[in-house]
Amino acid sequence: MADPAAPPRRSVLLIGMGVGDPASLTHEASAALAGVDVLFTIDKGPAKADLNALRAEICARHARPGLRVVEVSEPDRDRAPDDYQAEVRRWHTARAEVWSRALLTELGESDRGAFLVWGDPALYDSSLRILDDIRARGLVDVAVTVIPGISSVQVLAARHRVPLNTVGGAVHVTTGRRLAAEAGGQDSVVVMLDGATAWLDLDASRWDIYWGAYLGGADEITIAGPLAEVGAEIATAKQTARARKGWIMDVYLLRRRR
Amino acid sequence: MADPAAPPRRSVLLIGMGVGDPASLTHEASAALAGVDVLFTIDKGPAKADLNALRAEICARHARPGLRVVEVSEPDRDRAPDDYQAEVRRWHTARAEVWSRALLTELGESDRGAFLVWGDPALYDSSLRILDDIRARGLVDVAVTVIPGISSVQVLAARHRVPLNTVGGAVHVTTGRRLAAEAGGQDSVVVMLDGATAWLDLDASRWDIYWGAYLGGADEITIAGPLAEVGAEIATAKQTARARKGWIMDVYLLRRRR
Repeated sequence: MADPAAPPRRSVLLIGMGVGDPASLTHEASAALAGVDVLFTIDKGPAKADLNALRAEICARHARPGLRVVEVSEPDRDRAPDDYQAEVRRWHTARAEVWSRALLTELGESDRGAFLVWGDPALYDSSLRILDDIRARGLVDVAVTVIPGISSVQVLAARHRVPLNTVGGAVHVTTGRRLAAEAGGQDSVVVMLDGATAWLDLDASRWDIYWGAYLGGADEITIAGPLAEVGAEIATAKQTARARKGWIMDVYLLRRRR
Repeated sequence: MADPAAPPRRSVLLIGMGVGDPASLTHEASAALAGVDVLFTIDKGPAKADLNALRAEICARHARPGLRVVEVSEPDRDRAPDDYQAEVRRWHTARAEVWSRALLTELGESDRGAFLVWGDPALYDSSLRILDDIRARGLVDVAVTVIPGISSVQVLAARHRVPLNTVGGAVHVTTGRRLAAEAGGQDSVVVMLDGATAWLDLDASRWDIYWGAYLGGADEITIAGPLAEVGAEIATAKQTARARKGWIMDVYLLRRRR
């Protein structure tokens, strides 16, 4: 018999949806999506309309007719806190509560729920952490299956036809916030989550840059070259594109010059 | 008119085939494969039979009937050279010559050739570099299109349901050879190309490890836990599996303990 004090069980899939192009979905992901009863979507701020359009197209191609879509509202978040880690923790707690309510009220114990995650669920996405948190707090005994998806980093490398690593070398994947402190000693650095123009703070004579925005989508932009020659051009392109669309997602590879 | 001194032109696709499971292929990759005239395959040593079996299954599902498959023989390689970088360069040169001959003799100017690359063409795969080299040497003016594939790193993270990064943290992707020198200061390290047991050379009290071998395949093995508790178990599992199958491909994530 089930323990009456045990948290209720739910099953969810975290499906990597790739980026920009519905065709970047894997066959494993589309087959899994076909078995989903309830798709949960998260409000993603200014990029929401474009993300939802991609999600809708993927579902139209692969989900079963009558798939129920439930929107989970994001709690507010301070984007420029004094204590970044503390604010992230607070925000994750609030999200755990919102997600738990959604899982318990919208999904039955034998239903299969899913989240379609931009890129790959393992790289700079908080869904896995939130679901772990929900389980650790005893809110929902949630069984999670993860299906990998193509990340923007991979599309970036593909578009520029460049390997991420040098021969036998390492690849350091980091954030705009950390770049200046961590670039020393690296020869290949991938930068994600750069809300500004962190590449401009490096010694431009030492690096080549391969940059891309809205990768995989109709608005895709790519620029590459010696950082000293194209760094300012990329900053301008980023500012212009963000002003025009209201949001931007970009990623770049820095390769140390020989 | 074409310049008679210009190198002959060829077009090839580098298609990431994912790892282990034909369903890890993306829809973009399968659609591209359907348009391919000649598929080039590379002899991959002891893993060759298993890789070719996966390739054959992918082609049976997605390639057009009558697809021509051409095997390109790998030149010999010294696996324990005094000068690693020099030997890699020499070997790449030899490969460029072999690949050029194959492209020129087996592929017409208006044909579409392809290589199905294990994992993602941008991560620890030399195909892109060899094709660049062929073009730089003026052997073949080869136009390359890259289609990303799911890498073993992504399947590893999915199986262990663990994000590669901590909140706002970096991910350092490196080789077994470099691990001891580069782990300091990192909190998330992904190790590929470890021919031995580099994790055993770390301070075991400081790390958790998430290990996987033959990911996505029928023989998949995963082990995770504090490095001090499971490090030796993983070494034994790796030795046993390699002896049984004759080859092993493994990858692991090290996460610094708090």
